[in-house]
Amino acid sequence: MYPILNGLRVVECASFIAAPSCALYLQQLGAEVIRIDPIGGGMDFARWPVAPGGQSLYWEGLNKGKRSVAIDLSRPEGRELATALITAPGPDAGLLVTNYPQKGFMSHEALSARRSDLVTVRVLGWGDGAPAVDYTVNAALGVPCMTGSQENGDTPVNHVLPAWDLLTGAYAAFAMLAAERHRCRTGQGQEVTVALSDVALASLGNMGQIAEVLTQGDRPRYGNALFGAFGRDFTTADGQRVMVVAITGRQWTGLVTALGLQEPIAALESSLAVSFVADEGQRFVHRDALFPLFERAIGALSLDALRSRFETQGVLWSTYQTLGTALEHDPRLSLDASLFSMLEHPSGLRYPAPGAAATFHGAERHGAVRAPRLGEHTDQVLAEVLSLSSARIGQLHDAGIVATA
Amino acid sequence: MYPILNGLRVVECASFIAAPSCALYLQQLGAEVIRIDPIGGGMDFARWPVAPGGQSLYWEGLNKGKRSVAIDLSRPEGRELATALITAPGPDAGLLVTNYPQKGFMSHEALSARRSDLVTVRVLGWGDGAPAVDYTVNAALGVPCMTGSQENGDTPVNHVLPAWDLLTGAYAAFAMLAAERHRCRTGQGQEVTVALSDVALASLGNMGQIAEVLTQGDRPRYGNALFGAFGRDFTTADGQRVMVVAITGRQWTGLVTALGLQEPIAALESSLAVSFVADEGQRFVHRDALFPLFERAIGALSLDALRSRFETQGVLWSTYQTLGTALEHDPRLSLDASLFSMLEHPSGLRYPAPGAAATFHGAERHGAVRAPRLGEHTDQVLAEVLSLSSARIGQLHDAGIVATA
Repeated sequence: MYPILNGLRVVECASFIAAPSCALYLQQLGAEVIRIDPIGGGMDFARWPVAPGGQSLYWEGLNKGKRSVAIDLSRPEGRELATALITAPGPDAGLLVTNYPQKGFMSHEALSARRSDLVTVRVLGWGDGAPAVDYTVNAALGVPCMTGSQENGDTPVNHVLPAWDLLTGAYAAFAMLAAERHRCRTGQGQEVTVALSDVALASLGNMGQIAEVLTQGDRPRYGNALFGAFGRDFTTADGQRVMVVAITGRQWTGLVTALGLQEPIAALESSLAVSFVADEGQRFVHRDALFPLFERAIGALSLDALRSRFETQGVLWSTYQTLGTALEHDPRLSLDASLFSMLEHPSGLRYPAPGAAATFHGAERHGAVRAPRLGEHTDQVLAEVLSLSSARIGQLHDAGIVATA
Repeated sequence: MYPILNGLRVVECASFIAAPSCALYLQQLGAEVIRIDPIGGGMDFARWPVAPGGQSLYWEGLNKGKRSVAIDLSRPEGRELATALITAPGPDAGLLVTNYPQKGFMSHEALSARRSDLVTVRVLGWGDGAPAVDYTVNAALGVPCMTGSQENGDTPVNHVLPAWDLLTGAYAAFAMLAAERHRCRTGQGQEVTVALSDVALASLGNMGQIAEVLTQGDRPRYGNALFGAFGRDFTTADGQRVMVVAITGRQWTGLVTALGLQEPIAALESSLAVSFVADEGQRFVHRDALFPLFERAIGALSLDALRSRFETQGVLWSTYQTLGTALEHDPRLSLDASLFSMLEHPSGLRYPAPGAAATFHGAERHGAVRAPRLGEHTDQVLAEVLSLSSARIGQLHDAGIVATA
């Protein structure tokens, strides 16, 4: 954690990845995050992966360092408590991250009636508020039809990384700070909605893929080939897989030199009347002619020999590794780095947990903080933020309106 | 564009996706972005996809609304000009987004000697500053070994979406606003580094995947099955592909009801002594028993019949579409939405371009602005920001230090 956003107080009423990761990023830069869940846990409380004991490793990963308050949100008295926490006074409070529906008790209209400068960042599935998850948005947008090789025929290949969820979470954190900055200068709060589908569509548009499809039709599957330049997986003499990329002219020259392919490449350029150095796109257009040269050259070298040549020439490459192998053996992905803190988690397991993904060189990085047990901070938060007496908190427990871990 | 960050001035010296998209997001919320490129264009100036005329659709997508300055950065006089632009005075200026190496003339140390409160957000490949791109980081982290089906054997399946690039860009925009907020309160600038590999590793950790691999070993390939709950692609009677998901109990009950599968599911639950409603994980554990029931039920219905049943029950699903089909026929992904503006781009093509992915309900959305031609604003920026006379600007042109479109 970095002391960069110290003083900010954010309330989170959310589930799954996008909105909880938005609040996590804020927490990792020093904001106080109060996560409100239904008693017994929200929709993501059991989400896989799970520990051998059954507790969600996903939940305890996405909620690190937050304070947990458990409230019966189906009853008016519980909704009133949540509303009071969301709209509590303080110049650096009044910030809500949620993926609850736009209508109902957690509507911005209802909440801002209690605090007019409230900033609500609301993650939606579809832009019109209809429910969607990463995997349904991705199917609708065509990415699974571009993934994998021609041999997949018309069978889609889903991504396993919920990329749109993660991207929406980071973008929502950016939108929150932008809206909070605007509020500091104008006094004006507002609702900001961030839909998975808008984030996905805008991203494809920003990378030129909407223009591409409108002018040139749908992009077919290109297997593991990097689109528009040189890149693919290759296998070494000792059966290791490597990903090799050359986008710039310098990367291309380094790669060709590392493999001693200057002559056959020059011959190919001459016969095709193209320059692979000057025009990265030609490396893609003529990939069927180029790839066999690289297959043979890389296939004739052991991984060690290849590494030595690639390092000398500054080639852009990596071995393919499993995550387990990477964490165990790759020093660039070491869990001993300052990005990680060894923590004992609510599951009872002890393992390294990441902090902020950015490094702030003007501030000191403090260790990550474990996730709360569900409702661990209910009493503390009600007392601190709403100044409720212990007698009143006791009554709320007796009535089943709140719960503690 | 929204007038949310009006007044902020950001200088971008960068290529490819992560850093340029960071600055694009800032521009789309009202910041002024000055992008400095070498004369003739940076390393991403020809990146695919390209227009039929050869211009990069990628470049003109990622640089919308920016001002373009072209400078010969290989010469001391050009470097001095870039340094002067980056460190120009103004309380809302002194913000740099770059992916240039940490050492050299664009080091934070060198630049902050000229403006001590400079905020530099620097995108790196590996955490130690070594070069990497999305596809090499992804290979190193094991995602391609989890993607696709068991039939792929040990052949990796690369993602086609540069998810880590996009995520790093959004996270960098968040980090920029956090650092700028901190500077407003303390007067202190700093360098913030954001490495693709740290973002990727932290993301997997946040979702519980590092804990999973440490306690349970590497995750195998599960094909298109959603990990840890119910989800997969199915084919309708009329040969349409659909992605169907059920994570919550309510989603599951709705899906089972929509397909009239209550009886066989109850029988299966009874024989296995599990509850699929209460325990989402059991739907994954027993997917080989469940999937055939859904294959038959969905395979017996036309897409229209399925749609009607799914909509009645609020099932989480989507058809698989190509991007082209989605843009043409899916009203949820329409290019007529306010997210898009019809623009004439530097390529000469006219097509809809996305603005900010978030909707700010307290501000008016203005149309997106086309990308500049390379060097289009060189003279204007040198005059405005550095107060250079037109005679001096003319000398710089004559000496080949700067160029204009």
